[in-house]
Amino acid sequence: MIAEIADGSVTTPSGFLAGAVHSGVRYTDPDRLDFGILYAERPCTAAGVFTRNTVQGAPVTVSREHVANRRARAIVANSGIANVATGARGLADAREMCALTAQKLGIATEEVLVASTGVIGWTLPMERVREAIARVELRPDGGCDFARAIMTTDTHPKHTAVAFSAGGRTYHVGGVAKGAAMLHPDMSTMFAFLTTDAPIAETYIDPLWREIVDDTFNMVSVDGDTSTSDTAILLANGAAGGEPFAAESADVAALREALFVVARTLARALAADGEGATKLIEVRVSGARSVEEARRAARTISASPLVKAAVYGNDFNWGRVLMAIGRSGAAINLERAEVRLGDVVAYAHGGPTNVDTATGVAAMKQREVIIAADLGVGSAAATAWGCDLTEEYVRLNADYTT
Amino acid sequence: MIAEIADGSVTTPSGFLAGAVHSGVRYTDPDRLDFGILYAERPCTAAGVFTRNTVQGAPVTVSREHVANRRARAIVANSGIANVATGARGLADAREMCALTAQKLGIATEEVLVASTGVIGWTLPMERVREAIARVELRPDGGCDFARAIMTTDTHPKHTAVAFSAGGRTYHVGGVAKGAAMLHPDMSTMFAFLTTDAPIAETYIDPLWREIVDDTFNMVSVDGDTSTSDTAILLANGAAGGEPFAAESADVAALREALFVVARTLARALAADGEGATKLIEVRVSGARSVEEARRAARTISASPLVKAAVYGNDFNWGRVLMAIGRSGAAINLERAEVRLGDVVAYAHGGPTNVDTATGVAAMKQREVIIAADLGVGSAAATAWGCDLTEEYVRLNADYTT
Repeated sequence: MIAEIADGSVTTPSGFLAGAVHSGVRYTDPDRLDFGILYAERPCTAAGVFTRNTVQGAPVTVSREHVANRRARAIVANSGIANVATGARGLADAREMCALTAQKLGIATEEVLVASTGVIGWTLPMERVREAIARVELRPDGGCDFARAIMTTDTHPKHTAVAFSAGGRTYHVGGVAKGAAMLHPDMSTMFAFLTTDAPIAETYIDPLWREIVDDTFNMVSVDGDTSTSDTAILLANGAAGGEPFAAESADVAALREALFVVARTLARALAADGEGATKLIEVRVSGARSVEEARRAARTISASPLVKAAVYGNDFNWGRVLMAIGRSGAAINLERAEVRLGDVVAYAHGGPTNVDTATGVAAMKQREVIIAADLGVGSAAATAWGCDLTEEYVRLNADYTT
Repeated sequence: MIAEIADGSVTTPSGFLAGAVHSGVRYTDPDRLDFGILYAERPCTAAGVFTRNTVQGAPVTVSREHVANRRARAIVANSGIANVATGARGLADAREMCALTAQKLGIATEEVLVASTGVIGWTLPMERVREAIARVELRPDGGCDFARAIMTTDTHPKHTAVAFSAGGRTYHVGGVAKGAAMLHPDMSTMFAFLTTDAPIAETYIDPLWREIVDDTFNMVSVDGDTSTSDTAILLANGAAGGEPFAAESADVAALREALFVVARTLARALAADGEGATKLIEVRVSGARSVEEARRAARTISASPLVKAAVYGNDFNWGRVLMAIGRSGAAINLERAEVRLGDVVAYAHGGPTNVDTATGVAAMKQREVIIAADLGVGSAAATAWGCDLTEEYVRLNADYTT
């Protein structure tokens, strides 16, 4: 049983503190939080999944190094400047952010992870960063402020938490995330930080986190572009007691489900808040030859500009869904395949079902449009999330300097 | 020496005839040509390159079969209905189009290739197709009409031709193409048909055509989506005499250059006429580890929605170019890489060049924006073409049924 906790966040699990301030590294509004620290009062096991973009920000390089030993207990994060393509200076700055945070908290520099999001190619004004680190106050209810501090073009903060039971104990999983949306030059990053007071074995936290991320955050597409700073981190402090969860633990399914629910909630929120978006698209592919092909087909459909524009325009355009499946390279049997938009079957038994226009438009006129495709060649399935493509997306991304 | 021929087309090379009519398979305007036939008075060697989309139209299946023996001498083409996802009925219709055209011309059914573009999932009204085939009149100046007949959402017909000399003879290469643009449900297809009166050996025409297509039509991206009907065909009738060109022929470079010039002219025209486009983008990648990586980087940059939106908005946003290179997976050395937008160097020697806004905007305010990136890791190069992303693209693709 997974129970959602109202207004939950990364500080809902026991033993996690967070805080945020306005640093002014880029945004001038003094009320805007843009700098935060998340801290675990006791050592954690930790796992990180980072962008696959070969151009990576300095914070990604440093966090990768620090989390390599599966240990961490703090995250220092800022929005406004991404510290990417900034050379040796940028790397030194990212390291200094970790060192100063560690000093403040009385822990080792290697226990601090760092994440920056914002403009590419700008260096951080370090005097403001130093001053911000000194000013952050850590509180047991600071998770929502921390969620605000990492926002760039997100229209609202994203945070959630759940409770679950295992072995007679109650555990919590909390999370915050920021936009897969992109706007002003390369405010592109996706951040997702999850915490849990369940203990997770060092040998298990990496494969577990990779599995959760692959099924959730990696299935979100706003525009097919991948940021240079994408970062997803899980911290497990074990504050709620019990033996560390490992792959073979009796109740591990409950932990996995709790992590999945928190990550999926955040992933859906990221997709729905894509730039200029008016609708959430959920793509459910089934009947695929392999999970890999199901994922590829689902992602290709959810990222297709033509599918996204059709959803925006309430166009019952199942042909574009077939086209996207074909482009993904996933195997499909056109004689056995089925495509549904909303509740309406559009293609089945080797041909179109000839739905009338009114029925088709009604199926598309939803805030959440579900596109379901059975490829007819196997039993593997996957789900992806995206949003519609609107004139507003183009305006937001074109009208920066002019 | 390659000389462009004014108003040239597929009927500029000797021995090729073409004609077109209004068939009414979908479009109701009686003045709109939507059905055409291209015919070579003598046998040709032939090569076809088709969509890699695993969902393929019936015409693609039939044309693949017919061109497998490297022989063909006619193409029958229509716009309005793509004959895709139409099952056994669609396949029979595509075969009948070839058979009726062959009968009209007194050649074998296997010598006819077929190409249809338009809505997916609709079957062709065959009585109109039959009647159209009967009505087409073939003329030595019919190439421009044929170019009109294959248009869907293109705003103008695309045709060109050149002359070149080899071994004391004058040869011609002509071509027509239709939009990589997409609009009403899946009017998506790219068609490119080239003709030449130069003889080309059966053993050489396939690799030669693949090479040309890979450097031209395959480097065009309007929105990253791949049609189910993309078809590029080369017919060589040898009417101008001489020994068949083969890989080792003395003057083969002249033939290759002429084909390349015609194909590049058409490819650039397709990109510039992308839906809603106001600008042509040419992406030149150099310094790559391999041609494959250079192509991948160039295509990823030209297809990135964020790069395309920045070009539309005259935003000097070189960070998005670096991001796209990184996403492509091509190797890049950030210490040695260089990025130019228009004439202005944006990134070099491991960091931004700190161009002022006015200079940056001026570099972007061009009808043709050239993006040049040296990856700093090798000597391979590639060029890709695309267009900007505009509100009009979204409107055109969203507002179909509502």
